[in-house]
Amino acid sequence: MTRDDLTEKLLDIKRERGWTWAHICEAIGGMSPVLITAACLGDMRLPKAQCARAKELFALSDAEERLLHEPPLRGRSTAMPPTDPLIYRFYELVMVYGATWKELIQEEFGDGIMSAIDFDFTMERQPDPKGDRVRIAMSGKFLPYRYYGAQQGTPELGYRED
Amino acid sequence: MTRDDLTEKLLDIKRERGWTWAHICEAIGGMSPVLITAACLGDMRLPKAQCARAKELFALSDAEERLLHEPPLRGRSTAMPPTDPLIYRFYELVMVYGATWKELIQEEFGDGIMSAIDFDFTMERQPDPKGDRVRIAMSGKFLPYRYYGAQQGTPELGYRED
Amino acid sequence: MTRDDLTEKLLDIKRERGWTWAHICEAIGGMSPVLITAACLGDMRLPKAQCARAKELFALSDAEERLLHEPPLRGRSTAMPPTDPLIYRFYELVMVYGATWKELIQEEFGDGIMSAIDFDFTMERQPDPKGDRVRIAMSGKFLPYRYYGAQQGTPELGYRED
Amino acid sequence: MTRDDLTEKLLDIKRERGWTWAHICEAIGGMSPVLITAACLGDMRLPKAQCARAKELFALSDAEERLLHEPPLRGRSTAMPPTDPLIYRFYELVMVYGATWKELIQEEFGDGIMSAIDFDFTMERQPDPKGDRVRIAMSGKFLPYRYYGAQQGTPELGYRED
Amino acid sequence: MTRDDLTEKLLDIKRERGWTWAHICEAIGGMSPVLITAACLGDMRLPKAQCARAKELFALSDAEERLLHEPPLRGRSTAMPPTDPLIYRFYELVMVYGATWKELIQEEFGDGIMSAIDFDFTMERQPDPKGDRVRIAMSGKFLPYRYYGAQQGTPELGYRED
Amino acid sequence: MTRDDLTEKLLDIKRERGWTWAHICEAIGGMSPVLITAACLGDMRLPKAQCARAKELFALSDAEERLLHEPPLRGRSTAMPPTDPLIYRFYELVMVYGATWKELIQEEFGDGIMSAIDFDFTMERQPDPKGDRVRIAMSGKFLPYRYYGAQQGTPELGYRED
Amino acid sequence: MTRDDLTEKLLDIKRERGWTWAHICEAIGGMSPVLITAACLGDMRLPKAQCARAKELFALSDAEERLLHEPPLRGRSTAMPPTDPLIYRFYELVMVYGATWKELIQEEFGDGIMSAIDFDFTMERQPDPKGDRVRIAMSGKFLPYRYYGAQQGTPELGYRED
Amino acid sequence: MTRDDLTEKLLDIKRERGWTWAHICEAIGGMSPVLITAACLGDMRLPKAQCARAKELFALSDAEERLLHEPPLRGRSTAMPPTDPLIYRFYELVMVYGATWKELIQEEFGDGIMSAIDFDFTMERQPDPKGDRVRIAMSGKFLPYRYYGAQQGTPELGYRED
Amino acid sequence: MTRDDLTEKLLDIKRERGWTWAHICEAIGGMSPVLITAACLGDMRLPKAQCARAKELFALSDAEERLLHEPPLRGRSTAMPPTDPLIYRFYELVMVYGATWKELIQEEFGDGIMSAIDFDFTMERQPDPKGDRVRIAMSGKFLPYRYYGAQQGTPELGYRED
Amino acid sequence: MTRDDLTEKLLDIKRERGWTWAHICEAIGGMSPVLITAACLGDMRLPKAQCARAKELFALSDAEERLLHEPPLRGRSTAMPPTDPLIYRFYELVMVYGATWKELIQEEFGDGIMSAIDFDFTMERQPDPKGDRVRIAMSGKFLPYRYYGAQQGTPELGYRED
Repeated sequence: MTRDDLTEKLLDIKRERGWTWAHICEAIGGMSPVLITAACLGDMRLPKAQCARAKELFALSDAEERLLHEPPLRGRSTAMPPTDPLIYRFYELVMVYGATWKELIQEEFGDGIMSAIDFDFTMERQPDPKGDRVRIAMSGKFLPYRYYGAQQGTPELGYRED
Repeated sequence: MTRDDLTEKLLDIKRERGWTWAHICEAIGGMSPVLITAACLGDMRLPKAQCARAKELFALSDAEERLLHEPPLRGRSTAMPPTDPLIYRFYELVMVYGATWKELIQEEFGDGIMSAIDFDFTMERQPDPKGDRVRIAMSGKFLPYRYYGAQQGTPELGYRED
Repeated sequence: MTRDDLTEKLLDIKRERGWTWAHICEAIGGMSPVLITAACLGDMRLPKAQCARAKELFALSDAEERLLHEPPLRGRSTAMPPTDPLIYRFYELVMVYGATWKELIQEEFGDGIMSAIDFDFTMERQPDPKGDRVRIAMSGKFLPYRYYGAQQGTPELGYRED
Repeated sequence: MTRDDLTEKLLDIKRERGWTWAHICEAIGGMSPVLITAACLGDMRLPKAQCARAKELFALSDAEERLLHEPPLRGRSTAMPPTDPLIYRFYELVMVYGATWKELIQEEFGDGIMSAIDFDFTMERQPDPKGDRVRIAMSGKFLPYRYYGAQQGTPELGYRED
Repeated sequence: MTRDDLTEKLLDIKRERGWTWAHICEAIGGMSPVLITAACLGDMRLPKAQCARAKELFALSDAEERLLHEPPLRGRSTAMPPTDPLIYRFYELVMVYGATWKELIQEEFGDGIMSAIDFDFTMERQPDPKGDRVRIAMSGKFLPYRYYGAQQGTPELGYRED
Repeated sequence: MTRDDLTEKLLDIKRERGWTWAHICEAIGGMSPVLITAACLGDMRLPKAQCARAKELFALSDAEERLLHEPPLRGRSTAMPPTDPLIYRFYELVMVYGATWKELIQEEFGDGIMSAIDFDFTMERQPDPKGDRVRIAMSGKFLPYRYYGAQQGTPELGYRED
Repeated sequence: MTRDDLTEKLLDIKRERGWTWAHICEAIGGMSPVLITAACLGDMRLPKAQCARAKELFALSDAEERLLHEPPLRGRSTAMPPTDPLIYRFYELVMVYGATWKELIQEEFGDGIMSAIDFDFTMERQPDPKGDRVRIAMSGKFLPYRYYGAQQGTPELGYRED
Repeated sequence: MTRDDLTEKLLDIKRERGWTWAHICEAIGGMSPVLITAACLGDMRLPKAQCARAKELFALSDAEERLLHEPPLRGRSTAMPPTDPLIYRFYELVMVYGATWKELIQEEFGDGIMSAIDFDFTMERQPDPKGDRVRIAMSGKFLPYRYYGAQQGTPELGYRED
Repeated sequence: MTRDDLTEKLLDIKRERGWTWAHICEAIGGMSPVLITAACLGDMRLPKAQCARAKELFALSDAEERLLHEPPLRGRSTAMPPTDPLIYRFYELVMVYGATWKELIQEEFGDGIMSAIDFDFTMERQPDPKGDRVRIAMSGKFLPYRYYGAQQGTPELGYRED
Repeated sequence: MTRDDLTEKLLDIKRERGWTWAHICEAIGGMSPVLITAACLGDMRLPKAQCARAKELFALSDAEERLLHEPPLRGRSTAMPPTDPLIYRFYELVMVYGATWKELIQEEFGDGIMSAIDFDFTMERQPDPKGDRVRIAMSGKFLPYRYYGAQQGTPELGYRED
């Protein structure tokens, strides 16, 4: 059994019962709906407590419960470049604004990256008379490049010397 | 003269004068720093008033001012997949969470996309004792797929029938 | 069950009964044949009323009916670049005329795009003594790039200032 | 001198004089603005009369005039997949609707293609209270696959036998 | 059932019976062996009369007969670039001589293409004391680029003015 | 100096003098126009006698003459897949008919290839009341796969045992 | 049944019986082990006599025997670039030394290629106190580019005029 | 001036003076030679103190000094997959062992990654009678996936619950 | 049965029994856990003694045991570029530091490579108050490019002449 | 100055003086012509003695001499897949026979690779009444995969236990 087999099974159950993601995320609970949905789609791991509730909700076997708890081989559910228009728009944002984000983040924080691992994401509807908007907020820890000395153990140089 | 030539010229001036993006964006003013920076990097157009101020700031020719006002061939400053780690992290987010975002946005809004054109972006530092975070907020107009009738002029079907 | 499985099933039924798309689109009705055909091929969603009629026409299960109503992961039925000559000719048009369309649309409308979401398409036979022609009309809403100010809530700049 | 050099020269002159494509197309005249613009961008050939007027308008040399009259190596001004959002939307239409167009065109016309060579294109603004629309009309000659016999000279089989 | 399934079935029957393509093409008859073979491999459509004979020859079902009559999604039986040496040599010819063919065809015919749709192909053995040769003859209709005027209905410009 | 530099020089001279390929090929003479044109475009080598005449015709230096005589790094003047419609149609023929050509050539000749090296090519206009046709004839030596024995020197097995 | 199915079957039998390639090649006999192994892996054709012995050795059906005798669609068992280190090293040799081989072979033989069809290959262990070596010898017929005249039938020009 | 121009200049000076990297790294000092070398090659940023010493060593202008201090667009000096054998071997290690590293690191640390940003690297010669070895030690901070709750501000779930 | 089938079977057993890699590696024993894990994932070969213990542990058939002992077609379990963030970070290290590693290794060792075959790898947890670190040590034999003379048998030139 | 600049300079001198590679390799001497030619083309390093002779032969500067002595970024002179027919034939051999070579080398030597670094290559003309042949001999050291124990320092397992 692969993780793809499990994802197809979960989606089949969701469809047959007529469930929504809101229903599934509330039933599993205790965690961001983004992460629970991503785990059902095979892109995230569920913690143990959540696995137990998913097992009950979907009537899974022990092995299926364990599979939900394994860190999956991420990034396989979305072809790149994305063919689906909704997903592509995010890809386009990276392509059009990526260089700009780099300039502005590094001017503010110094040399480093925004973590995609220690990362939080929320999505909500923002009512607007001209047409409602998708409002997304992300927050990722800034990770500065470390400038270690040649000898291990040497105190690292401060990375914000400027 | 190509847009790439102009971008290299602007970056040379910025470096020689020791300017920051904050300085440039304040000098040009009246618009989001994200858009002004993107325009200087060749990925956005500056409106006329901003072009005039950019001309003064950078001592541009008339043709260079007009070039800043042309909609550029976007998306050329970032190789895809991105080789730079900061930009790549955003790409990775699309690859890992893209399918999830699609599920959740369409469950909330119906069938459609979040616009990457009628789109706003802010970035700020979020202080955190465990390490400051990059906080990003995006808002894009939701655009539903329209379900036109077979005969042109036929009143379109409501797209949120469910 | 995946959307691909459903598409293969619908095509098998169409072939076994000897139906045309015209027949299927008339039976499902109430919407452009382009959209109904695209939904049967797995690239569009059918609204609820159309799903009900498709269920009856093809003798689908409840889960299959719901699957037809889900927004599919679009863009998977056509390899890019297209290998099929009919589809490739459209790809070639984008490659040969894309830069020209960009220049002319933006000279007329300002900086922005033609929506591929709020979009209508018709195809008809145009009799011609030298050989009939395929006549295609498309209409997509023009979406201007918005130039938001740095502070959210700031009144946006008019995008047609020139 | 390459065709790219000539394109850059024409765009420099256009920018320095502050011309629009409408002005250039009217000055060269006698042909669709789409074709004249495409020729200036290096994707089409200008006929001789138009070359003469372009020579006068842009003050070209004899060799530059001849270069405008040569069939260019088409398709080089647009990267594929397109990075620019305006051009990408057309690419997306081919990806999402390509299989559908194939089904409907071949159900109506039989086995063959819509020519991208014997092809006409118009673009106009369609006023709409919800936001103006880009209205595009294309017409391409239908070219049926020919079913020649094994012996050259054998009268071909009718291709619309069904 | 997909077209690939049908192709595998036809090849299995051919192999089990020990048939040659010559035998199959003669049995189906009335058309170039190139086209009949291509249809059996899933790259061409068979006309109705040929479908009926193929049905008899291979003992096909009604649905399989209809599938042979559908225009297939062409170009899927050959990976590009081709991995097979025989097919690759043709690819190499396009790569090495393509620019030359363009120059010579357009010097003779004007701006346009050789059709790959209204196209005939024969292959024969040419005895040669140094080793027999494969002799291939192709003939495709020349399709000139049309130079339509801006207004639809305007008499088109002659495309061979030079 | 690279071969690309020489090609650009030759094309500049051709354009400035208003020469045709027919004129150039006649002036250089003694060989197929296809090969002479290909050599001028940097995809073939000219024999010594032809190099001498090309030197005189184009007023080349000794080093340029020698460069024309070097076997070039072939296949660089045509992007693959071709973006130009005329060249693409040949690519499409390989993609659509490649598997068919393989079946038919190997049924006739046994296991092997048609040489792209010991290869001849002619192109001519074939008048046709429905529109003139491009008539192409190719002839390449058939090269059978050799089935050598394990010990070098062992007489090879006949390759046409069937 | 596809050729891949047959290859998997042959490898399963080899593994279950604990055979080596040396054993299989001796049992089939009469030909280079390289060719016999390649045929079992689906990249070469076996001559009729060898097919008969393979049929006996592996207890194949008549159709499987015939499939071994068909020229396969070569080049499908190795992804390119190769992911396996042993195969990759050969790929690397082509990448690093390809231009050098071209220069030296063409300086010695004139303009042409080394055939990959009329080609022989042996591999042996070369004992060496610093570590045994893989010793490979290849021999391929040199095929000169032919320089045909414009008129078919014209005596070809000597290709080694220099 | 681009970063590539600066890299070429630094390498020219290094070559003309006959310097080694050891010399350059000692002269600039205070930091790992890996980082200093990477900065000279355009893949890392130098801190301010190091920039000042590099300026002196290479006699750079003020703008060149500032350019060395800018975070570069990383990852552009190595084509991927690498064509150079030394670099390729590391790429191969990722390809062959990547899945294994994922299994073992996540079994030891939980779900997350080894940072490539907070990362240290040393290389040394390890004498060995069978041939000296390259000894590499890397150390990267482990970054666990964070499992934030749906409400921002909610205390995060512990990520090592198992 | 393919190696992929065997890998899926081993992972299913591991999951059903709730085993860790540490447990499996201890049970099979006598070799680095990295190599044993890699063999279970299909990227390495197990020696005979280890195969016997794996057979017992997983209750494998004789053929499955032999399959574990075959050198696999390596590099197929990790898509390149890696989509999984953990594996990607190593890929990124090669992309960002590859050119630097090449410079420093070759300055120290001369022209050659670090072997990815005669190669050792260890991974361990390095406790750190700021967050534990993944500590990786690699050691690969340095392989110098050999500079053989033109005549085989000629004593090779020393490769470290400088 | 880049290595590409130096290669172009050496080829210009070779062409202007009318030299052959045989002449250059004899003048530089003391090493295989394959390696000397590869170094001139930018794919290999010349040892110091050879650099000195190359400097004299081509009248190089000190910096150019040093550049010839640097290990180049290999593999950049040949696009992959190769577009040139001569080089492509070697690529094809890897694609068609790669899996076979792997099977046979590993059956003879065990699990490992043939080195592309400790590697020798000769090419010679093999006269043959049916057409001369290119005879190539390669010899590369066999490098077995090492199976280190988990503890560094542990005596490695013999890799040829079977």
